[in-house]
Amino acid sequence: MLDVHIMEEIVLRALAEDIGTGDVTTRSIIPETQQITGKVMAKESGVICGIPMMIKVFEKIDPNIKVKPHMSDGDKAEQGDVIAQIEGPAVGVLEGERVALNLIQRLSGIATKTARFVDAVKGTKARITDTRKTTPGLRVIEKYAVKAGGGANHRFNLSDGILIKDNHIKAAGSITNAVNAARKNAPHTLKIEVEVETMAQIDEALNAGADIIMLDNMDIEAMQRAVERIDGKALVEASGNMGDKNLPEVAQTGVDLISVGALTHTVKAMDISLRFE
Amino acid sequence: MLDVHIMEEIVLRALAEDIGTGDVTTRSIIPETQQITGKVMAKESGVICGIPMMIKVFEKIDPNIKVKPHMSDGDKAEQGDVIAQIEGPAVGVLEGERVALNLIQRLSGIATKTARFVDAVKGTKARITDTRKTTPGLRVIEKYAVKAGGGANHRFNLSDGILIKDNHIKAAGSITNAVNAARKNAPHTLKIEVEVETMAQIDEALNAGADIIMLDNMDIEAMQRAVERIDGKALVEASGNMGDKNLPEVAQTGVDLISVGALTHTVKAMDISLRFE
Amino acid sequence: MLDVHIMEEIVLRALAEDIGTGDVTTRSIIPETQQITGKVMAKESGVICGIPMMIKVFEKIDPNIKVKPHMSDGDKAEQGDVIAQIEGPAVGVLEGERVALNLIQRLSGIATKTARFVDAVKGTKARITDTRKTTPGLRVIEKYAVKAGGGANHRFNLSDGILIKDNHIKAAGSITNAVNAARKNAPHTLKIEVEVETMAQIDEALNAGADIIMLDNMDIEAMQRAVERIDGKALVEASGNMGDKNLPEVAQTGVDLISVGALTHTVKAMDISLRFE
Amino acid sequence: MLDVHIMEEIVLRALAEDIGTGDVTTRSIIPETQQITGKVMAKESGVICGIPMMIKVFEKIDPNIKVKPHMSDGDKAEQGDVIAQIEGPAVGVLEGERVALNLIQRLSGIATKTARFVDAVKGTKARITDTRKTTPGLRVIEKYAVKAGGGANHRFNLSDGILIKDNHIKAAGSITNAVNAARKNAPHTLKIEVEVETMAQIDEALNAGADIIMLDNMDIEAMQRAVERIDGKALVEASGNMGDKNLPEVAQTGVDLISVGALTHTVKAMDISLRFE
Amino acid sequence: MLDVHIMEEIVLRALAEDIGTGDVTTRSIIPETQQITGKVMAKESGVICGIPMMIKVFEKIDPNIKVKPHMSDGDKAEQGDVIAQIEGPAVGVLEGERVALNLIQRLSGIATKTARFVDAVKGTKARITDTRKTTPGLRVIEKYAVKAGGGANHRFNLSDGILIKDNHIKAAGSITNAVNAARKNAPHTLKIEVEVETMAQIDEALNAGADIIMLDNMDIEAMQRAVERIDGKALVEASGNMGDKNLPEVAQTGVDLISVGALTHTVKAMDISLRFE
Amino acid sequence: MLDVHIMEEIVLRALAEDIGTGDVTTRSIIPETQQITGKVMAKESGVICGIPMMIKVFEKIDPNIKVKPHMSDGDKAEQGDVIAQIEGPAVGVLEGERVALNLIQRLSGIATKTARFVDAVKGTKARITDTRKTTPGLRVIEKYAVKAGGGANHRFNLSDGILIKDNHIKAAGSITNAVNAARKNAPHTLKIEVEVETMAQIDEALNAGADIIMLDNMDIEAMQRAVERIDGKALVEASGNMGDKNLPEVAQTGVDLISVGALTHTVKAMDISLRFE
Repeated sequence: MLDVHIMEEIVLRALAEDIGTGDVTTRSIIPETQQITGKVMAKESGVICGIPMMIKVFEKIDPNIKVKPHMSDGDKAEQGDVIAQIEGPAVGVLEGERVALNLIQRLSGIATKTARFVDAVKGTKARITDTRKTTPGLRVIEKYAVKAGGGANHRFNLSDGILIKDNHIKAAGSITNAVNAARKNAPHTLKIEVEVETMAQIDEALNAGADIIMLDNMDIEAMQRAVERIDGKALVEASGNMGDKNLPEVAQTGVDLISVGALTHTVKAMDISLRFE
Repeated sequence: MLDVHIMEEIVLRALAEDIGTGDVTTRSIIPETQQITGKVMAKESGVICGIPMMIKVFEKIDPNIKVKPHMSDGDKAEQGDVIAQIEGPAVGVLEGERVALNLIQRLSGIATKTARFVDAVKGTKARITDTRKTTPGLRVIEKYAVKAGGGANHRFNLSDGILIKDNHIKAAGSITNAVNAARKNAPHTLKIEVEVETMAQIDEALNAGADIIMLDNMDIEAMQRAVERIDGKALVEASGNMGDKNLPEVAQTGVDLISVGALTHTVKAMDISLRFE
Repeated sequence: MLDVHIMEEIVLRALAEDIGTGDVTTRSIIPETQQITGKVMAKESGVICGIPMMIKVFEKIDPNIKVKPHMSDGDKAEQGDVIAQIEGPAVGVLEGERVALNLIQRLSGIATKTARFVDAVKGTKARITDTRKTTPGLRVIEKYAVKAGGGANHRFNLSDGILIKDNHIKAAGSITNAVNAARKNAPHTLKIEVEVETMAQIDEALNAGADIIMLDNMDIEAMQRAVERIDGKALVEASGNMGDKNLPEVAQTGVDLISVGALTHTVKAMDISLRFE
Repeated sequence: MLDVHIMEEIVLRALAEDIGTGDVTTRSIIPETQQITGKVMAKESGVICGIPMMIKVFEKIDPNIKVKPHMSDGDKAEQGDVIAQIEGPAVGVLEGERVALNLIQRLSGIATKTARFVDAVKGTKARITDTRKTTPGLRVIEKYAVKAGGGANHRFNLSDGILIKDNHIKAAGSITNAVNAARKNAPHTLKIEVEVETMAQIDEALNAGADIIMLDNMDIEAMQRAVERIDGKALVEASGNMGDKNLPEVAQTGVDLISVGALTHTVKAMDISLRFE
Repeated sequence: MLDVHIMEEIVLRALAEDIGTGDVTTRSIIPETQQITGKVMAKESGVICGIPMMIKVFEKIDPNIKVKPHMSDGDKAEQGDVIAQIEGPAVGVLEGERVALNLIQRLSGIATKTARFVDAVKGTKARITDTRKTTPGLRVIEKYAVKAGGGANHRFNLSDGILIKDNHIKAAGSITNAVNAARKNAPHTLKIEVEVETMAQIDEALNAGADIIMLDNMDIEAMQRAVERIDGKALVEASGNMGDKNLPEVAQTGVDLISVGALTHTVKAMDISLRFE
Repeated sequence: MLDVHIMEEIVLRALAEDIGTGDVTTRSIIPETQQITGKVMAKESGVICGIPMMIKVFEKIDPNIKVKPHMSDGDKAEQGDVIAQIEGPAVGVLEGERVALNLIQRLSGIATKTARFVDAVKGTKARITDTRKTTPGLRVIEKYAVKAGGGANHRFNLSDGILIKDNHIKAAGSITNAVNAARKNAPHTLKIEVEVETMAQIDEALNAGADIIMLDNMDIEAMQRAVERIDGKALVEASGNMGDKNLPEVAQTGVDLISVGALTHTVKAMDISLRFE
């Protein structure tokens, strides 16, 4: 699901960063002809993500390295599961090991966290979505990991979604003015989302024709009232410090979307290792 | 302490990623002449890192934006502290806000975690060091954040440190062979580090002239014996699942270095926001 | 309105392409100290666009070159009008002349054509929009020129708009399936547009909840009926061979948008020259 | 005839521009395993150019896509002719469709226009040549299209041809000085071309040893006299507002070359589409 | 005389290569506030070249570093002469020192060697020219150094000069065919040069209208006869193992140009150092 | 032994530089279908280096070109030896010829010079090492050539070796302070090298715990005393104007390493040509 050119750019940059002017240890010790076989293994349970990235890493180092995946992105791994097998020239495998693991561990960490949050709202209509609080340079693959974990994607950048915040409203004079300016100047292919804090703002946003209303840092009771007030006339997105503690009750309010910055800004790398035989 | 060309490459990539073809919301609503003033504030306590990156972000978007830092990288901020003031054209400030925050929040998260770990070993000679388990594309600035938090840097990539692991030893036939091959083929400017699991391996590494011995996943008691066996003939590095729970007792064994992958692979972004006036 | 990093990438590439290994004529003949003064003039009437690009061209060649614009992007110029004055080292001015003119002539050509089409639908609610039929490498600035000419922007690329065409419908089995899949898998910030050819397809698209309906190559009478059928439940976009001949009557049907590939794929460069004194 | 690295740079940039962070429509709706077959067809008659670019587009997106050309660059297509057949994974074919068409339509538009102009001067010795008035970023392939249409190439950039214009003459003090400076300072592998407006300038240029004389915006009668005066001592190039109206009579004057900016600055994209089965 | 974008690309690449992830020595020891003053000095006599490159190096590292040149490119320095003074933050100066010296030493080495060869043919009409035997990545600045040393430039690359060699002749069937094909297919702005080994080839090349005839590895006597045979009908270029030993007598034969690969492929770096005060 | 991504970057840059907008001669004359066969031959004896670079050059131009190496990097060639055979489309072979030769000639020149110097110190324990005085942009492959010639590599850049020079000592106040600062702030994986000029400095460096002591421009007698004074407590590196004249006697002093800038800054390209059949 990831475009080749997006994967290649990230992989080549990561390899240049990690290999530097060459792997002095491996190149000094291991003969070019030596072959190696290894298994990428889950050392804890989690949702796997990043297998195509891992394959691309080894393909770029040495096309003679063969990676046979045993799982697919989005699959749940238990501790001890084999994610993939790797076979080929030892020099290349060792040079790529760290980059491949750094990528798959981070992406699996995101997918795993997302899956936990998606699970927490099961039975409601709420979808868990990401934000723009991603790691600089890795946004597309991090948002891909959110989907692998069962989440949904919010806008990818400032050009593919209209989100009117406090400062836009102040600059425009009112929510109405801001929505009208966006409708007039931005592509008609984009929905208009407005961030609100009060019931009065919700009314104004609805009247102005907002497609999505983001409830910013509201408490549960206010969210409840907001959902009732909006009553299906716009999508409702809850936002602000969403996490394990409050997700179920936020979802129960009937919001359509819950956006969670921590899906990508605060990630525990999944413990995955490459064991050689 | 960060070279300009390193900062610029990361910042430009992050901006292109986040701005895409242009900020449709801001460009549709806010006039180019409008000015704005804001404060970058700590919403929790932590060690600040990434101020030069934040300055560079706004400088690249619009040189008319002025950023006045109130703190320096490595300073401890309390909740509510002002980290910097920003003033300039609203369009540029709003376009750069997310990238600037993503960078400073992540780096401050690393610095803060490092500082906590450094604190945990205070009074011992042990230094907390990072690893190569960093975010692809951000290694140099993440290692910079480790130093801002009081930690030390391990090698930056495969070309600026010799680390002989299991597979190198197997390929060479023995630790002795591996160390000799490294000494013969790698630059003499690099120390030779050997990863060991047993006392016998320690003896062989010392005899072969290893400069640093890495104790891989040893328990406390084994570490203790290892430190005694090595007795200053080489630097001793403890490695493997180091964290809040075991750092103090690991440090008490007398090791010189404790390398912690989680400093960079599992980070909680520090809560920092940009408040406008 | 154009972000600096977008302008710089295009300008630097164009300069490298045109200067090659150096301007052999100018460097062979003109001393580095010689100054020159010139005027960028409209040799025919039209809507000017590309002044910031022209400024950037000369700034990148030599910061000592001063460009004083007499007009702004979107202004109408008559034959003989001075668009800008240029003053500075002759070597740099002559090296940048062709690139600057190539950019401003093409963008002004687009703006001028757009303005003519916008004028043709004046008095109706129809907006003239561009398409993805732009010059490879210049999309962002060409769409900027469409806005300078009074037009509106359609999606910028495949990631910032959902447009369900024939093949998507076939693959999904039905319009309903395709719309549901898009709603499920794509970011909620994007509207869903469906391309239709018949009244039955319109009904299905409306029922599925399409936000925008594109009438593909319909004749005027069919468009008329389509607009009535849709009746404000979705935005209506007319598409297919739109131009001078049919724009007014298409607009009269009551469509919201008319997308015109020829705005960017078939452009007459505006005649603009740089006259030296 | 196009070098691989030149094609790849343009194609990769165009794909990144058009795909953005991913094709949300296609990726949301069409399964990765689905295959598709299509035909690239001429919807009007013209000279085809850009087939290798189209092949490269699909090769870069997915090497499993097979493109079978039915024609070669430079061939004349009639309305309804099949230019190529495409077969492969639907996701990749749909993602590349627009970029491939944008390239082949523009290049075929240039080749077609060139062929018309070449035809207009048939029977004379005049060759139709391009200029530097090309689209920024696409010069090499646009000049390739001019050759596909039967035209000849003028210099590609400022470093592979010496063209002494008005300002060079003023700076040098005289045509003689300018030609001598160019002969002294520029590579001996380049001919020296001088732009002239009067008979006196022609005489001076010939005496100075100019290899090519460009007649700038002369009327037919003056061109006639110029050709006689030059009498084979230098190549003669006619320049300035050349087009359908005046090409035949300009060619009849006996000039060797007629350079036409509009070949590339004012192009009608040839109508070519991709029809799926 | 060097375009900014050409200098910047080379300088930025060289800095990234030499600084790597940061200057560990300087950054560990020298405070950011410390200032330093130094002199770039000639430790042997030679023709200086590369001062603008040196200035660009320090400007890119830290704009606070001031470089005051005491000489210009092309000037002759004696041992002990001060070429430039440098003043500014010590960290930046020390980080840039090696790159700046590597560039100026190599370019001055080329300029010095060229000047010696130019001197060796003084009094004849022969010009010393370079070839394409340059260091990969540095061609434009190495050819610039040849000019600084008083030499002339041959073509810069395969696209700005036509040079018909043995294989082209074989493929075409004859010199005549090859010249005609080049005249037909290549831009008219380029002269046609033919490499010959015999008098018969010279005659054929002249009849075909070659503009330049390259005498490939001829002995002095043959060259003499070739010059007489050509008799001004084409430029004559001598080529093949030209150097200190044979240059004067080659020049005496009356050839117009002597191309010397060793000007750039075999260079002794000029001894230049940066002395701090 | 060279990583693919390092070779590709250099090769692609060199090809773009040499091919420019296309090989006008070859493309004008030689049909695309023509095949050619050639031999890369040593025209003088020397140590060959750069075969993988040469292979990469032709692979990048046209994968149909087959290169069969007859030798490996580090092999000694005698005059007339065939280094490799090349077979494939003539257009691609001729376009790549010069770049391939420029690379292999330069690298073989470095390997050959290194081998001569290594030979000059045979029988001693001294190793010949390179420096950072390499050609900007080619450092990694030039240092690879030094190893192919039997030499050893010094640090590759400022980040993978600590070398404390005069200015660092002055800034720190003393050698002791400088060494301590480096030990505190730089990665523990790097040895600490100190440049000294006197016996007193040697004593201080040893006391401070320097790992390597560089004797800067000492005469033979001083070197002798230095080696005795250091007595194995640190590696000893001799530096400064090392060459054919003094290498044997320097090596006799017992130093461990002799670093020679001229290995890379002053190189005679090995005479290698591509002969076609």
